[in-house]
Amino acid sequence: MKKWLDNFKNMRFLSRFADLIGLLKICQNLHFDTSKPFSRPTEYTTTKTIRKQCTNLLLQPATEVRSWLNLFKTIIADGEGVLWIYDKPIPGAIDALNQLKASGKQIYVCTNNSTQTRQQHAFKAERLGLNIRENEVLCTAHATAQYLKDLEFLKYAYVIGAEALTTELDAAGIVLHNDSGPDIMHETVEKFATEFRKEANVGAVIVGYDTHFSFCKLAKAVTYLKNPNCLFLATNVDASSYTGDMVLPGTGSFVAAIEYCTGRKAFVIGKPSANMCTRYIQNGLIQPANTLMIGDNYQTDMPFGHNLGFQTLLVGTGTHTWSDVLHLKKLNGNLAKHLMPDAYIPKLADLNYFLPR
Amino acid sequence: MKKWLDNFKNMRFLSRFADLIGLLKICQNLHFDTSKPFSRPTEYTTTKTIRKQCTNLLLQPATEVRSWLNLFKTIIADGEGVLWIYDKPIPGAIDALNQLKASGKQIYVCTNNSTQTRQQHAFKAERLGLNIRENEVLCTAHATAQYLKDLEFLKYAYVIGAEALTTELDAAGIVLHNDSGPDIMHETVEKFATEFRKEANVGAVIVGYDTHFSFCKLAKAVTYLKNPNCLFLATNVDASSYTGDMVLPGTGSFVAAIEYCTGRKAFVIGKPSANMCTRYIQNGLIQPANTLMIGDNYQTDMPFGHNLGFQTLLVGTGTHTWSDVLHLKKLNGNLAKHLMPDAYIPKLADLNYFLPR
Repeated sequence: MKKWLDNFKNMRFLSRFADLIGLLKICQNLHFDTSKPFSRPTEYTTTKTIRKQCTNLLLQPATEVRSWLNLFKTIIADGEGVLWIYDKPIPGAIDALNQLKASGKQIYVCTNNSTQTRQQHAFKAERLGLNIRENEVLCTAHATAQYLKDLEFLKYAYVIGAEALTTELDAAGIVLHNDSGPDIMHETVEKFATEFRKEANVGAVIVGYDTHFSFCKLAKAVTYLKNPNCLFLATNVDASSYTGDMVLPGTGSFVAAIEYCTGRKAFVIGKPSANMCTRYIQNGLIQPANTLMIGDNYQTDMPFGHNLGFQTLLVGTGTHTWSDVLHLKKLNGNLAKHLMPDAYIPKLADLNYFLPR
Repeated sequence: MKKWLDNFKNMRFLSRFADLIGLLKICQNLHFDTSKPFSRPTEYTTTKTIRKQCTNLLLQPATEVRSWLNLFKTIIADGEGVLWIYDKPIPGAIDALNQLKASGKQIYVCTNNSTQTRQQHAFKAERLGLNIRENEVLCTAHATAQYLKDLEFLKYAYVIGAEALTTELDAAGIVLHNDSGPDIMHETVEKFATEFRKEANVGAVIVGYDTHFSFCKLAKAVTYLKNPNCLFLATNVDASSYTGDMVLPGTGSFVAAIEYCTGRKAFVIGKPSANMCTRYIQNGLIQPANTLMIGDNYQTDMPFGHNLGFQTLLVGTGTHTWSDVLHLKKLNGNLAKHLMPDAYIPKLADLNYFLPR
């Protein structure tokens, strides 16, 4: 046991060293992007003006914007901050996406929110007026379950997450897992550790958004992750969200705690990782060259689109604004290329100016 | 509010970029160590053989080891893994430290454990047979409170930690703080956020070991840390400990979660940071040139000693063994110099061979 832990601590040091080497390599190449699962054309098929410049569409000739929009057969839109904020639709945004669909484009909603099943996301979108079916929702709880299903995973999964995550696991036939909900320290940590009965054959630790995240959950996760064959999956690594005056920790902060403790890196399903889309691309349902990713966050949505070879459009109704991106560009130039949207529009409703009615 | 959060997210990106530049600079200098608060003599006063080589003292001539030990007026020993494991003394270790004290050396016990007050640490050490007084204990709960006292801190402190931490704060006159203990999610996160009443004038978030660490505590900490003038202190950043077959997350994992969420870096009081010793050095109670740091961990104890200009001795009764260090040296050479002990001994009791009785 002790010997194992010694190895474990060596691994942590090596992991940090590997991180350093990784960063150096990235810097030598003058960009941060290390994973490009799908190739990106070196010369875009768009006009010169709309090309990794965060071009404000409202300042472009309407004909140019229309011909740019005509390039796309598929539109993938983030939900939160683009179409709605919590349960409130952003005025005109859903109508614009419906218009794009009515004009013949395939639309998808793509969200890192792991607290709802794919069905629940679809219900919500429909309730708010979006013309969408369940298989047009790309979401992390469903994608995580599908990822394990594709691996023919039959072991036990230890889950930090909401009920939606375990529901999606069940639906994918992964039925050996703990329930969601509170797991709190009732007495001393010694008693907790003594009484803890490890589940047999734990093959994955899955970390999603969990408002019951606790010391006990963290301890169980890192204990299972001692086994190097136990998968370590994160639905997403968003840092935070906020409600009113309160900052709420994101799934990424739980993941950071586990990564620090174990010296292991999570395999991330959600944006900016490509995993929510890979199946659709492999099946030919999404063709990167004619796909547009619309998002409100240059740290998740834009690199997600960039890595997959999509073009990207930032809307200013959520996390980041045009000035944020221009500021980033000024500070970092080429270093931030993968974060840089091709185009910008203050709100999705503004697209209505360019759409046939 | 939103504008503020935008700035906040920019800061997170900038912080990551600063990290990258920092790592590059460090690598150019071919060592990792960036903070050397006290100068270290370029030529040690020890024999050639005992010098950043993790020299096994048992393989050296006894006369040489004795003359090396005679160099030191002050001995600082870690507790856990050197003198005891939880409540069980490591055979002969406490006797060896008592012998060193009896031979005229000043001894200190120095621990990152923030779950006991300085008085409690002293009681425990005495109970296990160590001849020690309270002011010969250097511990993080006490040092954190003293750090704030030195700043004449009079604001409210939001504490994630054990009762010992709030007790030490009270003793230092810092009486405006929350209590330790559970803080769990009773209903929905929306209700939690709505009902949360921020304390006025919060000037510090302090993070120590807390077996009641929870989503609610994390959310409150990161909300207070939105204020850039609010201090962010960590008692220590140990990654993990273990009891039996269970890995327990260390304070560093809570700190990592908060750092990831806020984009801020904690100011760390415990080893390997120098803060537990600076007051003693400034007062002349500890003179680095004739001080030996004894520890079991090359990631905390050894760089702590190195950074302060002490010599260092690793004992193999805790986290790391001789072979771990030799393995590290083989892999990283000069890069790991600050982690490399001057000397090694399998257990502290082995020092008895070289001590007058």
